[in-house]
Amino acid sequence: MADVAAKERKILVAVDEGEESGNALSWCLKNVISENSKDTLVLLYVKPPRAVYTALDGTGYLFSSDILAAMDKYGNDVADCVIEKAKKICKDLQDVKVETRIEHGDPRDVICQMTEKLGADVLVMGSHGYGPIKRAFLGSVSNHCAQNVKCPILIVKKPKSTAGNN
Amino acid sequence: MADVAAKERKILVAVDEGEESGNALSWCLKNVISENSKDTLVLLYVKPPRAVYTALDGTGYLFSSDILAAMDKYGNDVADCVIEKAKKICKDLQDVKVETRIEHGDPRDVICQMTEKLGADVLVMGSHGYGPIKRAFLGSVSNHCAQNVKCPILIVKKPKSTAGNN
Repeated sequence: MADVAAKERKILVAVDEGEESGNALSWCLKNVISENSKDTLVLLYVKPPRAVYTALDGTGYLFSSDILAAMDKYGNDVADCVIEKAKKICKDLQDVKVETRIEHGDPRDVICQMTEKLGADVLVMGSHGYGPIKRAFLGSVSNHCAQNVKCPILIVKKPKSTAGNN
Repeated sequence: MADVAAKERKILVAVDEGEESGNALSWCLKNVISENSKDTLVLLYVKPPRAVYTALDGTGYLFSSDILAAMDKYGNDVADCVIEKAKKICKDLQDVKVETRIEHGDPRDVICQMTEKLGADVLVMGSHGYGPIKRAFLGSVSNHCAQNVKCPILIVKKPKSTAGNN
């Protein structure tokens, strides 16, 4: 216990556009990060591959390059928005260094790879990344990470007040 | 952050005879519990149903009552030993109340039920409860809990130095 304040931990928080990842980050700030820690908080957003968006069409038709460009722009806007929202949640942190990273690929694999690449001491994430529609394509990101990351993983569910069919 | 010290959290740690649950408990003490917290730490051991032991025989023969009694005694001894070992890990805690509970049943269900019954703020457990043989019968306890508990769940893997085919 005495060394909590002294040691420097790297805490990787996987954020996305869902409400749960915001809750996960808030919970982490309140419960894992101690006041005088020298922790580094890395906010990671993984832009899913374009196939996830195009597959949403479901018709099998190819999109024109205009539409694909618009989709890419939309993807970038979402990424910026998610990271900004996450940074806002962290705005009161004083001693903790906050870094942000935007990566691209299958979130399940990229998140697991990033824990190793960054040497994360713990991975924090919401239970349902990427909302119900994208989850149907991507599978449960948190389930995959729970089984594959080497470091401790903290999965934060919906808060009790809003928990429905979780 | 400022309210970390003031609030009282109930932290449920599922312990078992495996090395990982000891690691999970140690990691929790170092990383989740802050120095002046008024947390309550509940150490929970769930004795698996006798079927798990009898199934190990694999012959299909019924055991005599003597053997069953010896098995029950063995189960109780294991429970006491696990709880003692966990309490020893917690011996340096000063402000944190430590409670112990031994329950009986399928660990997957009982652990999930206990988080709700006790109103746990977080569930902490190792990644591989119950070792390779019993896991074959019980399935992965942590996977099940990750998908079914309502509260945040922290799953701690083997430490890097000893991690093999995790």
